Amino acid sequence: MKSYSLGNLNEDDLNRLCRRPKLDFESVFSQVRPILNEVKEHGDRSVRKFTKEFDGVDPNPVAVTPEHFNSDLDVKQQRAIDLAMKNVHRFHREQTQPGLEVETVPGIKCMQTTRPIERVGLYIPGGTAPLPSTAIMLGVPALTAGCKTIILATPPDKDGNIPTSIAYIAKKIGVEKIVRAGGAQAIAAMAYGTDSVPKVDKILGPGNQYVTAAKMLLQNSDAMISIDLPAGPSEVLVIADSKANPEFVAVDLLSQAEHGPDSQVVLAALNGFDVETMTQALESQLKKLPRASTARKALENSFILQVETMEQAISFSNRYAPEHLILNCDEASSYTDLIQNAGSVFLGAWTPESLGDYASGTNHTLPTYGYARMFSGVNLQSFQKSITFQQATPEGLKHLGPTVEILAGIEGLEAHGKAVSLRLQALKKVEG
Amino acid sequence: MKSYSLGNLNEDDLNRLCRRPKLDFESVFSQVRPILNEVKEHGDRSVRKFTKEFDGVDPNPVAVTPEHFNSDLDVKQQRAIDLAMKNVHRFHREQTQPGLEVETVPGIKCMQTTRPIERVGLYIPGGTAPLPSTAIMLGVPALTAGCKTIILATPPDKDGNIPTSIAYIAKKIGVEKIVRAGGAQAIAAMAYGTDSVPKVDKILGPGNQYVTAAKMLLQNSDAMISIDLPAGPSEVLVIADSKANPEFVAVDLLSQAEHGPDSQVVLAALNGFDVETMTQALESQLKKLPRASTARKALENSFILQVETMEQAISFSNRYAPEHLILNCDEASSYTDLIQNAGSVFLGAWTPESLGDYASGTNHTLPTYGYARMFSGVNLQSFQKSITFQQATPEGLKHLGPTVEILAGIEGLEAHGKAVSLRLQALKKVEG
Repeated sequence: MKSYSLGNLNEDDLNRLCRRPKLDFESVFSQVRPILNEVKEHGDRSVRKFTKEFDGVDPNPVAVTPEHFNSDLDVKQQRAIDLAMKNVHRFHREQTQPGLEVETVPGIKCMQTTRPIERVGLYIPGGTAPLPSTAIMLGVPALTAGCKTIILATPPDKDGNIPTSIAYIAKKIGVEKIVRAGGAQAIAAMAYGTDSVPKVDKILGPGNQYVTAAKMLLQNSDAMISIDLPAGPSEVLVIADSKANPEFVAVDLLSQAEHGPDSQVVLAALNGFDVETMTQALESQLKKLPRASTARKALENSFILQVETMEQAISFSNRYAPEHLILNCDEASSYTDLIQNAGSVFLGAWTPESLGDYASGTNHTLPTYGYARMFSGVNLQSFQKSITFQQATPEGLKHLGPTVEILAGIEGLEAHGKAVSLRLQALKKVEG
Repeated sequence: MKSYSLGNLNEDDLNRLCRRPKLDFESVFSQVRPILNEVKEHGDRSVRKFTKEFDGVDPNPVAVTPEHFNSDLDVKQQRAIDLAMKNVHRFHREQTQPGLEVETVPGIKCMQTTRPIERVGLYIPGGTAPLPSTAIMLGVPALTAGCKTIILATPPDKDGNIPTSIAYIAKKIGVEKIVRAGGAQAIAAMAYGTDSVPKVDKILGPGNQYVTAAKMLLQNSDAMISIDLPAGPSEVLVIADSKANPEFVAVDLLSQAEHGPDSQVVLAALNGFDVETMTQALESQLKKLPRASTARKALENSFILQVETMEQAISFSNRYAPEHLILNCDEASSYTDLIQNAGSVFLGAWTPESLGDYASGTNHTLPTYGYARMFSGVNLQSFQKSITFQQATPEGLKHLGPTVEILAGIEGLEAHGKAVSLRLQALKKVEG
C-alpha cells in the first residue's frame, strides 16, 4: 500500500487522493441502452434472450413465485438469518416517523405523514457467491414499510434456480415474484413490467456497473421509476490510533478488499499506530485468504495516510466521504459529532464492519464513490414517501388570507389571490 | 372541459385519463447536453454566452453576493414574506428527526443521525413574474437544515438584476452567491462549479423542461450531484361533493390553470355537485383573468370525472397521484387515511391551494406527473442525509459474532468472518 504523510500534502494532493477511479458513465450507458430498449419493447422474450446470452440459462417463465424454489436451510444457517432479519427489522422499525401536526398560525393546521411506496423491485447481485445479506437489507425494510408488492430479481444458476438462502428470505418477507435474471435486463423488466414481471415504482439494490447504469438511465426515462442511489465499488476508511490492534486493522482492510478488485481501502494511521506490524499481518492473512488475488488487486489502489490527530483523520474522512468508516481508536464514540460525510460508521475495537454488513441491524446498502456527501444509505424512508396536508378554519383563512393575496400579487397570479378573496367575501356575507 | 362518468370507464380508459401529456425526454436531453458540456469546459464564459443568447443580458461576473442587489420592499410585502417564511420555518423545523439509538441485541448499539448536506444550489425560475415563494420554499428549509453554503440561481432582467423580493429573501437566508442565470446553463454552473459559482452537492427547485432535463442528466454524470425530484407541469385534482361551493371550485381550478398552458386540472365531482353552475362560474371568472389565454389552454387538456362516492374519487386520485389534491367536501379530514399518492392535500372548503403555495407552512415544491407515487415533496430531509453508527461491546461481539461468521460463510467472504473470529480469539485470550 502506498503511504502519504498528511503534512506533506497540499489541497490538490488531498483532492486527488479522494478521487475514486474514474467511471466512464457514457460508455457503460451506451452498452446498456439497447438492452433497456429491447426489454421495453419485447418484454419477457428479451429478458430470456439476454439471460441465455449472459448467464447461459433460459428462464421460462422469467418471473415465478418464491414457492417455485427450495428454501430448506440447515438449522444453523436458518437461525443466523432469522437473527439478522430480526435485528434489521428492529432498527428499521424504529425509523418510523410519527405523523406531524403543527398549527403554524391560529386556525391553520399543517400535517405530514408517510405512506409506503406501493410496488418496489429489489435487486440482489449474483456472481461468485449468493448474497442473502442483501436480500435481508432490502427485503426487511420493504416489509416493515408496508410495501404492497415486493419483487426480487437475482441471476439464476444454470438450472434456473436461485440460492436456497435467498428463497428462504423471499418467502419470509412475502415477495410476490422472483425475477430469474440479473443485469440491465432484470432492471428493465421491473421498471417497465413484462407479462410475467409486475411493473414497480422504485428499484433498490447494489449491482455491477451495468445494473447501476440501467437504474440511472431508467430513472430519467418514461419508465417512471425512482432508484435508491447510484452504487459503485465498495470502500472502507479505517482510522487507527496507537492503541489499535494491527491484526484487527489488517483483517478489516482485507474484509473490504476481498469484495472486488475495484474495492477502495484507506487507512488513516495516527502517530504511534504500528503500521509495520499491520503490514506484516496483512501479508500473512492474505496468504490464507481464498479471495487473495481479488484482495491483492484492491490493495494496489489503496493507501495509508499518516496523520497527527483524530481531528485531522476525521477531517480527511469527511472530504473522502467513505461508504464505511471504522474508528478503531480510544473513546471512539466521542468523535461522532465531527463526522459529516459517511455511509455507516463502526465505533471502537470490537465493532468490525462485518457486524453491520450482516447482522447489527443497520443497513449495508450505502452510498459509495463520495455520494455519502448527499445520499443516505437505504433506510425505512427509502421505501416510503411523505404527503403533506393542511386545513384552514374560517378564522385561519381570515388570519392568513391577506398574506396570500399580497404574495400572489407580487407573482402576478391573480386567480391564486382570488381563491382566497372569494372565500373571504363569502365569510363576510355569512357573518353579515 | 371534457366530462366522463366513472361507471362507463374500463381499466384502460382510467389509465389513459391518468396519463400526463407525453414528455419527449430524449429530444430535450439532446438539446441540453451540449450546453452542459460547454459549461463544464468553459465555465463562466459559457454561462455568459448562453445567458446573452437566451436572456439578452451578459452577467459579468456571473455570480455575485446578495448585497449586489436592491432588497427594499414596501412594508406590506415585507411583512407578508416574513410571515410566510416564519410559517415555512415552523413546519420544517418540526420535521427535525431526533437521533435514533437502538440496542438490537445486548451489547450491540445501532444509531442513526442526520447531517446537513454541505452545499446546495436552489433554482428559482424566472419568466413572466418573480417567484419569491419558491425562494422561500427552498431557502428556508436549507437554512433550517443547517446547509453551510447556499447558492441561488435565477434568470436576471435586462440590467442583470434580480427581483427585489428574491434579493430580500436571499439576504434573510444567508445565500452566499446569487447566480445571475437561468436554464440548463445555470444548473450546469452549480453542478460543476465555475470561477464565480461554487460547486454544490445537490440541486433543488422547479423549472421548465430544460432545467429539469439538465438536473436529470447531471445526476447521472461525473458532476456528482443529486437532485430533489424530476419536476413537470403543475397539476391539481379537486374532489367536490354536493355541498361544495361551485365558485370556490371554479377559482381553485383556475388558480392551477393560470400557471401554464400545460397545467393539468382535474375535477372529480360527486353526485349532487352543481357542475353547471361551476362551469358558468369558470367562464365568468376566466373573462376577468389577466392570464386567461394561458388558463384556457390548460383547461383544454383537463376533464371532469363524475363519481358516486368519496371512496371512488379518492381511489381515482390515488391512481392519478396528483401534485395537489383538494378535498372540497364535508368532513374532509376523515378521508386522509385513504389517500396514498399525492404531493400536498388541502382539506375542506376554507383551504384553497394558494394557502399552501405561499404561506401555510407546507412546501410547494412537489412531485408532479405521477411521481407522487414514489417521491415526497421537498422537505427538511431533502437538505440532509442520514448516517448510521454501531458500537459493539466485547459481550455484544460474543453474542452476535457467531451469526456473522455463519452468514459470511454462506457468502464465501472469509475475511468478513475472520474480522470477527480474530477478535473473539483475542477476547478469549484476555479472559484466559
